[in-house]
Amino acid sequence: MTVIVLVSVLAMLQYLLFGVLVSRARTRFGVQAPAVTGHEVFERYFRVQMNTLELLVVFLPALWLASLFVAPLWIALLGLLYLIGRVLYLRGYVAAPSRRELGFGLSFLPILALLLIDLVGAVAALVRG
Amino acid sequence: MTVIVLVSVLAMLQYLLFGVLVSRARTRFGVQAPAVTGHEVFERYFRVQMNTLELLVVFLPALWLASLFVAPLWIALLGLLYLIGRVLYLRGYVAAPSRRELGFGLSFLPILALLLIDLVGAVAALVRG
Amino acid sequence: MTVIVLVSVLAMLQYLLFGVLVSRARTRFGVQAPAVTGHEVFERYFRVQMNTLELLVVFLPALWLASLFVAPLWIALLGLLYLIGRVLYLRGYVAAPSRRELGFGLSFLPILALLLIDLVGAVAALVRG
Repeated sequence: MTVIVLVSVLAMLQYLLFGVLVSRARTRFGVQAPAVTGHEVFERYFRVQMNTLELLVVFLPALWLASLFVAPLWIALLGLLYLIGRVLYLRGYVAAPSRRELGFGLSFLPILALLLIDLVGAVAALVRG
Repeated sequence: MTVIVLVSVLAMLQYLLFGVLVSRARTRFGVQAPAVTGHEVFERYFRVQMNTLELLVVFLPALWLASLFVAPLWIALLGLLYLIGRVLYLRGYVAAPSRRELGFGLSFLPILALLLIDLVGAVAALVRG
Repeated sequence: MTVIVLVSVLAMLQYLLFGVLVSRARTRFGVQAPAVTGHEVFERYFRVQMNTLELLVVFLPALWLASLFVAPLWIALLGLLYLIGRVLYLRGYVAAPSRRELGFGLSFLPILALLLIDLVGAVAALVRG
């Protein structure tokens, strides 16, 4: 499972880094807390972090459950795809909101694949008793 | 624990579905990213997803910890109640924000019950040494 | 691991309590759902809950993974520091947004320490094979 620990830690560090980018954008574009609107580019960074939060809460449990049913190395590869997808999402969204689609898909599809593995694995285990 | 895996996956799929509803509401009511305000009905869908995110981060760990102390089938029933509560929350909130209370309660109370089981279980284990 | 269960439950209860404070602030300052802006003090409570959500999704997995590599009692102490940091964050932020820094640092640094333990532990395990 060590490789699953490693992917989990990388996903959490990536997400915290996105949070640091929001802090920096807050200073750079003069958006005073508690406001989270007021400058379009700040809002893009903020939405990148929020969307990553929205996915991370599913990614981590789905990743660990999937590694109960399929060899961890394959599961870790799906995790790697998610990590790359998030980098593309950040770069696309900050350039222009309309360019966030590819990165979103590349990070969302691995999560769906993990959940499908979890679902099939659990149903198969129930059927076998 | 298979039944706990199943409830977890259903809760994650339900939450992702709520995210899809937000995407559709974004297109339907013409709210351009990165904005998350601008149309009352869009905001309701957005708040349903956000509130479900807020609960999911507690629901999943509380569910798994509780299944260490009480038979998983009982814990899964509490999980089922949460899932039904979230459906009522969605339907109520979209109809009118004031009608979100019942669904909220029905999904919040199972979480409190799970946390109580976790707390009593952990304290009892500490006392026994 | 009982002490890790206990810290996890306390962190989840603290976070839910911050959510209750948001509900109360909503009523007290007349901010109608689905709006999450409109009164500065309401927004501070809301941001405290959101920021705690943002950290909790990393805190819980980082805490459990770290307890695989280091004695749970030491890990629980880092968890306790996080809990205290969050209380200071709430008190500081509600008083004035500029006074949220100390509490933020005191809850963010334990999370970084936990992730570092996770990372070093996982890499060391991989190297040993």
